Amino acid sequence: MHAHIVHAHPEPTSYNGALTRAARESLSDRGCSVTVSDLHQMDFDPVEREVHYAERFDGNAFAALAEQRHAWEKGTLSKEVQDEIGKLQRADLVILQFPLWWHGPPAILKGWMDRVFVNGGLYTSRMRYDTGYFRGKRALISVTTGAPRDAFGPGSRGGDFDTMLWPLQYSLHYMGFSVLPPFVSYGVQGHGYRYEDEESLRRRLGQNLSDWRSHLSALECVTPIGFPVWEDWDDKGRSIRS
Amino acid sequence: MHAHIVHAHPEPTSYNGALTRAARESLSDRGCSVTVSDLHQMDFDPVEREVHYAERFDGNAFAALAEQRHAWEKGTLSKEVQDEIGKLQRADLVILQFPLWWHGPPAILKGWMDRVFVNGGLYTSRMRYDTGYFRGKRALISVTTGAPRDAFGPGSRGGDFDTMLWPLQYSLHYMGFSVLPPFVSYGVQGHGYRYEDEESLRRRLGQNLSDWRSHLSALECVTPIGFPVWEDWDDKGRSIRS
Repeated sequence: MHAHIVHAHPEPTSYNGALTRAARESLSDRGCSVTVSDLHQMDFDPVEREVHYAERFDGNAFAALAEQRHAWEKGTLSKEVQDEIGKLQRADLVILQFPLWWHGPPAILKGWMDRVFVNGGLYTSRMRYDTGYFRGKRALISVTTGAPRDAFGPGSRGGDFDTMLWPLQYSLHYMGFSVLPPFVSYGVQGHGYRYEDEESLRRRLGQNLSDWRSHLSALECVTPIGFPVWEDWDDKGRSIRS
Repeated sequence: MHAHIVHAHPEPTSYNGALTRAARESLSDRGCSVTVSDLHQMDFDPVEREVHYAERFDGNAFAALAEQRHAWEKGTLSKEVQDEIGKLQRADLVILQFPLWWHGPPAILKGWMDRVFVNGGLYTSRMRYDTGYFRGKRALISVTTGAPRDAFGPGSRGGDFDTMLWPLQYSLHYMGFSVLPPFVSYGVQGHGYRYEDEESLRRRLGQNLSDWRSHLSALECVTPIGFPVWEDWDDKGRSIRS
């Protein structure tokens, strides 16, 4: 089994860093091979823009999807995008590790999707959802929050994770991944933003790291999220279930 | 009335460009002053990283929120962030104009939020939601989709906009904005991605531009989205309505 972790946090010594290291160790210990894309360390550019396309489909107007399709067909995708695609192709499990910023992933991870999920290559109008390119592979979000667990849920102050992560998880579903329920580490504050004293924080988050390792060791037993698929829609894409 | 448009599309001749130009004209014609932040043209960096903080709070470990608070207090925020904050402070209405990429805003706009909504200055634990910094101001999302209208709705292929835009709209609510229902332009395809012939596209999207102008001329009559506020939560942030 090969796992690939896409890591999106600017500080290596952060708790996100600890979660990625724990995942790498836990998966390696059980015989998996593991690769990591540390987007900040790679200086990954999250902005879809002209400079990424050496041979333009249309040099007069920049339409990202048309350029992606053209570059895929001509084999002229940028090296960093090609490398990321290669890592995803080799992976059976993809983990996205990030802190919750403004109720979603940091821009560097959002832009990783904008650039790496290449139109015409990794998806087409027919190759999506349960017919998606990455079908048979699993994806798992591991996210940290600043606020404590109590603050999350429908109508609660921090919001509900099903809604909050829907755009990201449905996009993974769009690409064909079976999306496992997220692993959420609550109450993780950066330096100077602690709700509790350091010892308590270490004790609690140490327990959370153990929970994360345990979670990873039992993924086979986890049922993916039940997003709608082609048989749930008519030919215009309307739900035939509601 | 002053309106500020945050525009996030890489191609000036795109339909997103036409929508921003229409908004600027429509609002100006009725006596409003209008400013535009064209994030691509500004080469806005959406990545929160060390280089943006000249005087570090902690030079050993980069915690974005701590650095933001420190830079706000010391007056050392980067010029591009200070400029964006100034534009928001002057605005009565903020419009976010963008194409729907992976069920949300392009990374350049997500990162505008990551960097510009500065911790300790524009929000604190007590200055959020209905006590937020930008209370009294309105925010409006104008978004374009590739897929036609039929494909959107609960359980439908493209997803439901209430869910899809929740992270973005709730973040605006967090900052104190009254969030108006989004204006969605459906079936907008980039060059080479047209569902219909050019004349039909021009006719239909021309109508949509008129609808957009009409919509902007009647914003006073639009009721903001009813997100939960402080009185809906207990002291731990749990909903007391459900």
